Amino acid sequence: DPKLKIFALNSNKPLAEKIAKAVGVKLGKTSVDRFSDGEIRINIEESIRGDQVYIIQSTSAPVNDNLMELLIMIDALRRASAQTINVVIPYYGYARQDRKARSREPITAKLVADMIEKAGATRIIALDLHAAQIQGFFDIPMDHLMGAPLLADYFIEHHLDKDSVVVSPDHGGVTRARKLAEFLKAPIAIIDKRRPRANVAEVMNIIGEVKGKRCIMIDDMIDTAGTITLGAQALMDAGATEVYASCTHPVLSGPAIQRIANSPIKQLIVTDSINLPEEKKISKITQISVGPLIGEAIRLIHENKPVSPLFNNRFS
Amino acid sequence: DPKLKIFALNSNKPLAEKIAKAVGVKLGKTSVDRFSDGEIRINIEESIRGDQVYIIQSTSAPVNDNLMELLIMIDALRRASAQTINVVIPYYGYARQDRKARSREPITAKLVADMIEKAGATRIIALDLHAAQIQGFFDIPMDHLMGAPLLADYFIEHHLDKDSVVVSPDHGGVTRARKLAEFLKAPIAIIDKRRPRANVAEVMNIIGEVKGKRCIMIDDMIDTAGTITLGAQALMDAGATEVYASCTHPVLSGPAIQRIANSPIKQLIVTDSINLPEEKKISKITQISVGPLIGEAIRLIHENKPVSPLFNNRFS
Ligand SMILES: Nc1ncnc2c1ncn2[C@@H]1O[C@H](COP(=O)(O)O)[C@@H](O)[C@H]1O
Ligand SMILES: Nc1ncnc2c1ncn2[C@@H]1O[C@H](COP(=O)(O)O)[C@@H](O)[C@H]1O
Repeated sequence: DPKLKIFALNSNKPLAEKIAKAVGVKLGKTSVDRFSDGEIRINIEESIRGDQVYIIQSTSAPVNDNLMELLIMIDALRRASAQTINVVIPYYGYARQDRKARSREPITAKLVADMIEKAGATRIIALDLHAAQIQGFFDIPMDHLMGAPLLADYFIEHHLDKDSVVVSPDHGGVTRARKLAEFLKAPIAIIDKRRPRANVAEVMNIIGEVKGKRCIMIDDMIDTAGTITLGAQALMDAGATEVYASCTHPVLSGPAIQRIANSPIKQLIVTDSINLPEEKKISKITQISVGPLIGEAIRLIHENKPVSPLFNNRFS
Repeated sequence: DPKLKIFALNSNKPLAEKIAKAVGVKLGKTSVDRFSDGEIRINIEESIRGDQVYIIQSTSAPVNDNLMELLIMIDALRRASAQTINVVIPYYGYARQDRKARSREPITAKLVADMIEKAGATRIIALDLHAAQIQGFFDIPMDHLMGAPLLADYFIEHHLDKDSVVVSPDHGGVTRARKLAEFLKAPIAIIDKRRPRANVAEVMNIIGEVKGKRCIMIDDMIDTAGTITLGAQALMDAGATEVYASCTHPVLSGPAIQRIANSPIKQLIVTDSINLPEEKKISKITQISVGPLIGEAIRLIHENKPVSPLFNNRFS
C-alpha cells in the first residue's frame, strides 16, 4: 500500500505540525536550507519511492523564496519516484495578479500555476483563492477549501451571531459576505466607496441597515488594512454598536498592524494560513487554525473520497 | 521591420547599460519594483508589439527574487505580443545543482531551464555555464559565450603572459585552464587535492612546473574562495614567484572577500557578469566588462549571423 507522507517547507511549520497531527502522521524528514550564496539546498532524508506525498507550503512573504522552495521540493520528490505529489498551498501568493488590469501586465498567478504544474505536482489543495477562476489556471485536480465555516464557528461560539450584520468591505466581496451571513443567519450590508467627481475625496456609502447593530466585516485577505479600517470607521459613524473583522489570509504588510491597532475594530479573526511573526501577534488579532480542516481534506483525498462535504461541516 | 529592444531588470543594471551602449540603443522603459507585501510588480512602459526583445538578467543573489523578476517579465512580454523574447543570463544561478550527486536531490538547474522556457523565452544567451551540459536542459536555441578571451586580453595587455603557467585549481577545471593557456601561449599545471587516508588533512599535489614562474589560476566562478586561496598558497609554497587569479563569475559569498584580502593572490581578474556591491570592490579585484562581447552577440543574432566567430576574436 502506498504510504501517506507529509513534508513541511519553511513558510508555515506550525500549521504543518497541526495538519500532520490531524492526519495522525509525523512530518517527513527533510532539511531545507541555504548554500553560502543564498541558493536553496534541499535534502529529503527518507525514502519516498512509491509514496503519496503531501507538501505544505504557503507562498506568503518572502514570496519568491517560498515559491522556489516549493518548486525545488516538487522537483526532488518527482526525481525520487513519489507516486503522487499533492501540493497544499494554504495561502496562494501572487493571486491578485490574476488578470491584465492594464496593458503589458503579467498574469503572475497563471505563471505560478504553470511553474507548479511543470515542476511535477499532481494535485493542488488550496484555501480561499482570491478568485475562484485561479482553479482554471491548473490542469491537474484541485480541491478548493473554504475558511468561512471556521470563521462562522468562532462568531457562533462567542455568541456574536445575534443582532449582527455581515458587511462586505467592497462590492467585489459580496458573495463571500453572503456565505458567512448564511452560516450566521444574519443579514448583509455593503460598503460602496465612490468618488463623486474627479479629485474629490471618496465617499463611504453604506448599503443596508447597520445602525444599532454589531457589524462583522469579512474579506479573503487583509494586506495593508486600509480598506478594512476605513470601512470600520464608516460603520461606527453610521451608528454600528461595534465592529468585528475577519479574513482567511492575514497578509498584514506595511502599516497594517498600526492601522488595526488604531482602528475601531474590536477584534480581528484570522486563520493560520499565513504564519504570523511575534510582532504581528497583537491582542486584537485572534488566529484560528485551518489545520484540522486541511488534515481532514488530506484524509478524504487519501481514501479517494470526495472533499466537497467539508463545505457543509464545521471544523475548529 | 521588427525593432530591437533591450530591457534591464534589477540584478545588473550597470552591465545592461554597457550592453545597450555597445548595441547602440537606449534601454527600454519599464518599472520593476515591489508591492507592499513584497510581490514583484512589473510595468512595461512602452509598446513592444512585434518587436525583438532582449532581457538582461543575472540570476545572482538574491537568486530567487532575480529569477522571479525574469520569469514575470517574460510572461508580461509574451502577453504583450513580443515577436521574440531573447533572455541574456550573464550569470546562471543554481548551475551547480546540475545533477543528482546524492539520492533524492533536485536538479534545480534543469528546473530553472524549464521555468524560463515555459514562461515563454525563445532564445538564451549565456556566458560560461558551470557545465556545458546545461545547454541541453533547454530545447530553444542557446548561444554560449566565453569569458576566457577577455581574461586573456587583460593578461596580455599587462604583459603577464610571458614566463607564466596557467593553473587549474582542481581536476574539474583543466579544460578551462587549457583554453586560457592557448590564448596566452603558456603551459598548464593542475592542483590535485587528495586525502591520503580518511581523517587525514588534504594534501595539495601540484602537477606541472610552477617553480620560478608566475601562476595564473582560472575558474568559472569563485564563491567562498576557499579553493582558490588555498591553491594560491600551495603555489607560493611550491616556489611560484607570484600568483594571479581569474574567473568569469565573482559570486564572492560569505568569507570570500576576507580570504582573498588575506591570501597571496596579487590580483583577481573577474568580469561584470555579476554586479559587485561597493563593499566587495576591493583594490585586489579588477573587473572587466562583458558588455561589448554580449552587445556584439546581440547584434549578430539580430542580423541572423552566426555568433561562433566571437570565440576567435578579442573583446574588451
Ligand atoms: N501584491 C499586491 N499588492 C497590492 N496590489 C496588488 C498585488 N498584486 C496585484 N495587485 C493589484 O491588485 C489588483 C487586483 O486586485 P483585486 O481587484 O482585489 O483582484 C490589480 O490591479 C493588481 O495590479
Ligand atoms: N549554491 C551552491 N553552493 C555550494 N555548493 C553547491 C551549490 N549548489 C550546488 N552545490 C553543490 O555543489 C556540487 C556540484 O559542484 P561541482 O562539483 O563544482 O559541479 C553538488 O554536490 C551540489 O550539491
